[in-house]
Amino acid sequence: MTKFFEEDLDNLKQTLLRMAGKAEEMIRMTVHALVQRDVSIADELPKMEQEVNRLQLEIDDRAFKLLALQQPMAHDLRLIIAAMKISVDLERIGDQAVNIYDNTKILLQFPLLKPLIDIPKMADIAEEMLRDSLDAFVDSDAGKARVVVTRDDEVDALKEQVFRELLTYMISDPRTIQVGLQLILVARHLERIADHATNIAEDVVYLVEAKDIRHHAEEQA
Amino acid sequence: MTKFFEEDLDNLKQTLLRMAGKAEEMIRMTVHALVQRDVSIADELPKMEQEVNRLQLEIDDRAFKLLALQQPMAHDLRLIIAAMKISVDLERIGDQAVNIYDNTKILLQFPLLKPLIDIPKMADIAEEMLRDSLDAFVDSDAGKARVVVTRDDEVDALKEQVFRELLTYMISDPRTIQVGLQLILVARHLERIADHATNIAEDVVYLVEAKDIRHHAEEQA
Repeated sequence: MTKFFEEDLDNLKQTLLRMAGKAEEMIRMTVHALVQRDVSIADELPKMEQEVNRLQLEIDDRAFKLLALQQPMAHDLRLIIAAMKISVDLERIGDQAVNIYDNTKILLQFPLLKPLIDIPKMADIAEEMLRDSLDAFVDSDAGKARVVVTRDDEVDALKEQVFRELLTYMISDPRTIQVGLQLILVARHLERIADHATNIAEDVVYLVEAKDIRHHAEEQA
Repeated sequence: MTKFFEEDLDNLKQTLLRMAGKAEEMIRMTVHALVQRDVSIADELPKMEQEVNRLQLEIDDRAFKLLALQQPMAHDLRLIIAAMKISVDLERIGDQAVNIYDNTKILLQFPLLKPLIDIPKMADIAEEMLRDSLDAFVDSDAGKARVVVTRDDEVDALKEQVFRELLTYMISDPRTIQVGLQLILVARHLERIADHATNIAEDVVYLVEAKDIRHHAEEQA
């Protein structure tokens, strides 16, 4: 039984990492489409979104069975709960990537306002945050997870800068309003991706540390 | 033990409903502030956000203890999982209310563009969706939950309409750009609230029906 349980737990982790890989790829693809003005991912992206959604259902199903059929305790129980929570964030990251792609399709109807600088920078940081939060999950590294949480402010500051700069453009030349608006929305989606990465990092801290909860559980078990 | 378990489960439900009540109130307050151009909630709103966050931690803690100390099965297990998931959506609804309030503070620096019509309509529908999804939760009514899910399109259509109308204003008169942008962001936040209500409704369907999962669990238990 214990061997099966460990295998099931490991399968849950692997499924989550597969899902995370897909979500990361969706961000990379859409940011590439945005920066390179290249919509060749039009067919692939919806398939990847479906796959991410399917993996979330699989994770929920695996987690439910582990909870129902085993009596996971302490760290194992937290791992199962964390996996369910992280899968929700990964699914929403996939949604945000699709949103960015929708903005990109509109952007391509207009000439480029100026070379994109801060938005790709935001995308880089958001991707790094996601990667680091997942590394922290794999390595059970609460320290690394805490660093991710601190970087959220960096992304927020960049977003504010993007907002201000684009507003200036839009006000001085109304022909740039539609482009400016779409880029502002892209910046918001990237900010949301960074928020989700932060959520994941917080779940990792809970998974690794959660001293008070574990304490109670062990006390009363 | 069973009596304590039922009490604990009921406490979890009650805590979730208290959290939902606070989240609903946050939406009402911020939409009122927006429509009435009244920022008298400036002190109260952050307190409510803190309370919503605290209730989420309490729900997680109650849910974790129920999972660790009891061996909930089938419907009870789904109820605990649903409560954890719903609490995440309620917390984000609170965040969106705060976002709307942030937009409102900027909006009040400018004259009113025109009387707000579609945005309050969006807010009404989003609030109704949230209320109905929670009623469906309390009554274990999957039918009512399914109706909530279908209303998401209604909110999306209104959001598109708001976008188009505001863009027209912004393009024809650049002095309206800042107001238009903030209102577009408000419409997006309301759309997100409707999305969260939809998530909650989907969790209720899973809680009430989930035939396949329960089937497997019962088979192997």
